Amino acid sequence: MTAYDIIQAKKRGKALSKEQISAFARMVAEDSASDAQIAAFCMAVCLRGMTDEETFLLTQAMADSGERLSPPAAGVFADKHSTGGVSDSTTLVLVPVLASLGVKCAKYSGRGLGHTGGTLDKLESFKGFNVNLTAEQFSSHVERIGAAIAGQTKSTVPADKRMYAVRDVTATVDSIPLIASSVMSKKLASFAQVILLDVKYGDGAFMKTARAAEKLARLMVAVGTASGRQVEAAVTDMSAPLGDNIGCNAEVREVIEVLRGKKNNLARLSLLHCERILRMAQGMEEKRAKALAEEAIASGAALEKLRRIVSAQGGDTAAFDDLEALPLASGKFVVRAPKSGKLHIYAQALGRACAQLGGGRQREGEEIDHTVAILLKRRAGDAVAKGEEIAEIRYRERRQEAFDLAQSAFEVKPSYRARPLVHCILGKEDL
Amino acid sequence: MTAYDIIQAKKRGKALSKEQISAFARMVAEDSASDAQIAAFCMAVCLRGMTDEETFLLTQAMADSGERLSPPAAGVFADKHSTGGVSDSTTLVLVPVLASLGVKCAKYSGRGLGHTGGTLDKLESFKGFNVNLTAEQFSSHVERIGAAIAGQTKSTVPADKRMYAVRDVTATVDSIPLIASSVMSKKLASFAQVILLDVKYGDGAFMKTARAAEKLARLMVAVGTASGRQVEAAVTDMSAPLGDNIGCNAEVREVIEVLRGKKNNLARLSLLHCERILRMAQGMEEKRAKALAEEAIASGAALEKLRRIVSAQGGDTAAFDDLEALPLASGKFVVRAPKSGKLHIYAQALGRACAQLGGGRQREGEEIDHTVAILLKRRAGDAVAKGEEIAEIRYRERRQEAFDLAQSAFEVKPSYRARPLVHCILGKEDL
Repeated sequence: MTAYDIIQAKKRGKALSKEQISAFARMVAEDSASDAQIAAFCMAVCLRGMTDEETFLLTQAMADSGERLSPPAAGVFADKHSTGGVSDSTTLVLVPVLASLGVKCAKYSGRGLGHTGGTLDKLESFKGFNVNLTAEQFSSHVERIGAAIAGQTKSTVPADKRMYAVRDVTATVDSIPLIASSVMSKKLASFAQVILLDVKYGDGAFMKTARAAEKLARLMVAVGTASGRQVEAAVTDMSAPLGDNIGCNAEVREVIEVLRGKKNNLARLSLLHCERILRMAQGMEEKRAKALAEEAIASGAALEKLRRIVSAQGGDTAAFDDLEALPLASGKFVVRAPKSGKLHIYAQALGRACAQLGGGRQREGEEIDHTVAILLKRRAGDAVAKGEEIAEIRYRERRQEAFDLAQSAFEVKPSYRARPLVHCILGKEDL
Repeated sequence: MTAYDIIQAKKRGKALSKEQISAFARMVAEDSASDAQIAAFCMAVCLRGMTDEETFLLTQAMADSGERLSPPAAGVFADKHSTGGVSDSTTLVLVPVLASLGVKCAKYSGRGLGHTGGTLDKLESFKGFNVNLTAEQFSSHVERIGAAIAGQTKSTVPADKRMYAVRDVTATVDSIPLIASSVMSKKLASFAQVILLDVKYGDGAFMKTARAAEKLARLMVAVGTASGRQVEAAVTDMSAPLGDNIGCNAEVREVIEVLRGKKNNLARLSLLHCERILRMAQGMEEKRAKALAEEAIASGAALEKLRRIVSAQGGDTAAFDDLEALPLASGKFVVRAPKSGKLHIYAQALGRACAQLGGGRQREGEEIDHTVAILLKRRAGDAVAKGEEIAEIRYRERRQEAFDLAQSAFEVKPSYRARPLVHCILGKEDL
């Protein structure tokens, strides 16, 4: 069985066997399939599709391509994954809330790319924060502190790592079976028993429609459930940015504010996620889960837990005493409402504008500037008056192109139809 | 415009613009598109297709990706291209026949791969034969001797070279627009005004059906005609091997025999091709063209011309005096008819068996053994008696797997339905 034969079969629209899928994942992990072969395979999957069974097999095969981590101790460990969005720092709110309530969080995160932000980049806003933990360090942090947030190492899910790098440059990212197997292989390689998936849809998400997001969510829940994990997926709105700020330092400031009690969409979604995880992990009632999560913030326990996590991973905790320790770039460009009416905000253009100013990554491996920020003064749906300040861009190097792009992200129209923050939540009973 | 955007557009089934196609061909030639991007593009073309207009644009863009050769002098130059088959040495018969009749042949050829043979490999059966001529040497040979046969240099059609290498390992060879643009870009980069295309179909060809071969033939004639060349395409049978022998030395022996007057399918097809080219190049009547081509062989002029071509390119001409100068491997394995009836022969399995024995190439760049051979004692359609010798395999190293494969290429059935050697001939009036 050669890579060629497997690509050929998929190109012809055949469902691949377990043997074919395992062999291909092994060839990808062991470098015996070339990048060109991976690209051809992925494009064939994009255009020919995969059955749920094939997706499950590919996920398993990729998860098996590297070392599977074992849990540090008995008990239930939780993880949460978002399919990526703009101004989405729920991880940094949710992990300390849960950890302060005794739910141990083993959270593997990624970096930002294109218009989307990444948790690892945000954590590096705390100077010295080490995102590269060994498997032993990771386990030990989860055990001692109740949480660790780090990047997956090279040896976890190597097949996915190569495949993702190829997909990223070959327009083969937006395939539901490939996204599902990429996300879930990383989850299965980890030891989290309870997994909450946040599947975004809308302008700032990979999935543009609720329908596509639901399809992906259902597939991931099915794959996770078939692998013996407790999985739920929330399909959530990502048409406008989730939080009030875009850019690493500004988003981390907002996380601290939310953990101090600020109420906004970031706070609301993070608490909803906490609730679902508490219910899955501890079989708790909805009301009690909600009350506990709110109390973890109100009491300051969650904020204290985040400080502990940051400090345990070597990060500077000065920002917990003074937000100015997370500086914003000094250049200011004010965006004003072009007319009066209801404000519409498009997440993707804002994410891209932030990246163009250096606050995000246009290509993998680029350095990013943590001080660049787009601060929203008004939110989607707000009534605004012509000339009113609706956003402030903080930049180090002036780039008119980025300002124009950011400006294009705001529209004022006579009306605004609000979408619910959470479109639906899917669990194994919905399969 | 990035490679990503162009791949994305094709993946979504859009017809690409001239700008997009030119940009992609340039990125391929200049190495700014990666192998993975080329593979994704080719798979998208395989599954989404290309319009005739896109194919024409891609062909032009690839032909423009390197240096276009200019003719050595005024006059009409002829070229012939086969889409590849088993025991197909028409080039080595046709070029000397035409050259001896004053039609100058500027023939760029390729190497064998998989089950198919290649003219350059066969020419190297003449020890010392140099297939790597510079553009100047090539032109000068065509001018002085009336013919040159060589490999295209790295600088001719670099976009096709890269794209072909990627297609070869990613199961994206069998796309009609990609085959058409690959073949025709090389023809357009050369200076041949008159081009005869031999589009094979059947077991030993890339195109399995006459219908697919006709489609490819028509597309190539259209692209060549639109580029101002005189082009005809013959759709010909490649279910059984064309000639009587498979393997370099054995096929070259057969070429010499045909030029000495042997009549078989190789002789017949080569003469038919000569006729078409004479009619295109010199506006000759069918009868006269046929008579002249036959006379070139009968008089020995064509054989003498081949000796001259071989010697001009540094090849040893001893075989012209003694066929034993082209040795066959000493190991002999005899294939016998399993029962009595009509013989069926499948070209592909024989080509693959020859390659497995070292007589062909399983992977690009492999050395080949010129002495390995499969000699057909009986032809497809012949009535054979049980136990009768139908083929002889000449091998250096015994490989049962290859013998079994070769044996599977012969079947004896109660009846045989002969296919015509030439299914149809298409010219610009058929578009």
